[in-house]
Amino acid sequence: MNDRDALPGLAPLFEPPYYAVIFTSLRTTVDAGYGEMAERMVALAAEQPGYLGVESTRGADGLGITVSYWQSLEAIQAWRAVAEHRAARDQGRADWYRHYALRIARVERSYGWSRADGVEDPTLR
Amino acid sequence: MNDRDALPGLAPLFEPPYYAVIFTSLRTTVDAGYGEMAERMVALAAEQPGYLGVESTRGADGLGITVSYWQSLEAIQAWRAVAEHRAARDQGRADWYRHYALRIARVERSYGWSRADGVEDPTLR
Repeated sequence: MNDRDALPGLAPLFEPPYYAVIFTSLRTTVDAGYGEMAERMVALAAEQPGYLGVESTRGADGLGITVSYWQSLEAIQAWRAVAEHRAARDQGRADWYRHYALRIARVERSYGWSRADGVEDPTLR
Repeated sequence: MNDRDALPGLAPLFEPPYYAVIFTSLRTTVDAGYGEMAERMVALAAEQPGYLGVESTRGADGLGITVSYWQSLEAIQAWRAVAEHRAARDQGRADWYRHYALRIARVERSYGWSRADGVEDPTLR
């Protein structure tokens, strides 16, 4: 697949290894400022060194999963230290989240499939 | 946090290392049988050796992320080979998915936070 970047909602299939931050959260019913902050954090993350992409969704039940992809653990640590990101996390704990889990994982293989192609991506990496 | 298992929607924070299968997909508008099959696959996965847990959500835009957790790569390969799982994947490509990406990643650190606790989990693992 050469058009992976164009698949709506999906991050490109970079060549492993790289890193994923899996952030799973359940929201409170407090909405004030949440949408704007979420958008701002996606934009700010995309400006960081080592950022590769993001996939994010939230269901009607308030459960959300955001997976961001990074070139290295160092890039993830640097993003974690960004002051505006810290402030957002503080506000998240104060207002927006009931609970969350965060996992840092090393991506070792990836593949994809698109209806436009009709066949599974042969590059099982 | 001693009640991690009880947090709705979140898989327990197992001791790393273990493995995550990150399945990101965009659905078609075809609904026939999808919900039942999705529930069946969650139940069937939970019966497999090496299964640890699952987190899954889908937004109103049709983008879904399911992360399942496994003890080993061998457990993931065995689950992939289960005949009923294969059949579900075939039907997914025929009917339910516009495109998807699947990544296999080794979880190296994890932590969590719950409003019930009020402080970030000190066990940064």
